[in-house]
Amino acid sequence: MVLLSGGLDSATVLAMARDAEFDCYALSVDYGQRHAVELAAARRVAEALGATEHRIMAVDFAHIGGSALTDRSIAVPTAASEGIPSTYVPARNTIMLSLALAWAEVLQAHDIYLGVNSVDYSGYPDCRPEFIAAFDRLARLATKAGVEGAEITVRAPLMQLSKAQIIRHGVALGVDYSLTVSCYQADSAGRACGRCDSCRLRREGFVAAGVADTTRYA
Amino acid sequence: MVLLSGGLDSATVLAMARDAEFDCYALSVDYGQRHAVELAAARRVAEALGATEHRIMAVDFAHIGGSALTDRSIAVPTAASEGIPSTYVPARNTIMLSLALAWAEVLQAHDIYLGVNSVDYSGYPDCRPEFIAAFDRLARLATKAGVEGAEITVRAPLMQLSKAQIIRHGVALGVDYSLTVSCYQADSAGRACGRCDSCRLRREGFVAAGVADTTRYA
Repeated sequence: MVLLSGGLDSATVLAMARDAEFDCYALSVDYGQRHAVELAAARRVAEALGATEHRIMAVDFAHIGGSALTDRSIAVPTAASEGIPSTYVPARNTIMLSLALAWAEVLQAHDIYLGVNSVDYSGYPDCRPEFIAAFDRLARLATKAGVEGAEITVRAPLMQLSKAQIIRHGVALGVDYSLTVSCYQADSAGRACGRCDSCRLRREGFVAAGVADTTRYA
Repeated sequence: MVLLSGGLDSATVLAMARDAEFDCYALSVDYGQRHAVELAAARRVAEALGATEHRIMAVDFAHIGGSALTDRSIAVPTAASEGIPSTYVPARNTIMLSLALAWAEVLQAHDIYLGVNSVDYSGYPDCRPEFIAAFDRLARLATKAGVEGAEITVRAPLMQLSKAQIIRHGVALGVDYSLTVSCYQADSAGRACGRCDSCRLRREGFVAAGVADTTRYA
């Protein structure tokens, strides 16, 4: 089970899970995100990287608001800020992992991959190793498979990698990053703004990796 | 924040949270359940018990299947079974708590109530005290509020109570149980089958509590 956003990190994770010879079921979540073109990107990435199946699940929590990514009245910041930025979406990774856990249980899949990273990241609490460890523990307690002794494992192979290292891994595994969209406010054609936090981290990653940046900028 | 299914237990929990002088925001989740009349019951209960606001959030995970409650090709069992029954919905409480956590964070609410119980219950893994403790821990790690030091607490006040004790609590707090629907396969008017596991636990609870059973049976 691979959580696939359509961005650079999760595309790399899907390639890593395929490289580990898993049959991969990719899950994307439509949570009313401003950058819905990333869902189209996820579909392209799932196909290009040979996912066995790709599903998009909708959760209508956009109207809860509380984030620049789901509430269009809050601007996406283009400068670095102190603390947790306004692009943080309350409990997003908890919700996505919960949905992945449900589908994994039905499929009898015991490995859940996601592309969180705590090096070149935006400071979200639910991208930290201690969060992943807590969800891993929860997953075993929450499910029938866990109770029956299955080793359900949440895998975050990018956790300790820099963006440049992630990109080099992906390139080695044949990921075509031009298919991916990282920008928080990409236009309807999927072209990146080049200015938001996510664009900045991505652009600097390509430079540091010494890899040509194939991102399409607006 | 109160997770409100429309059944007997969560109605009692809402009454307990109100009795503790909380402003209560009630959240129901439409997960494609067979017994969707419980959502109408939740609306009635939220109004009768004075919730400040009641929301129903939809998650389209019905097509994932894997449960008699979301897949109509699986019959609801009417006899006790060994192990975890087919009415178990994969990761349901994890998903519901995640959604509650998201809304709670936006509201800056730090107390999340839910009506799980490990005495007169159906054997679901995500109703056990160790599951609740693990989610409680996760909630503090997953959120901005938690990182900033807020004491986010998942409260399951029914955990160690028998169904009869729950009913006596509710009656003392003025809960009108005729508004609630517990049946896994209630008809479209909300009348209970009287035969499924949930009906059986509920009926026996009223008898043991010495309280008249106002449930409407088909």
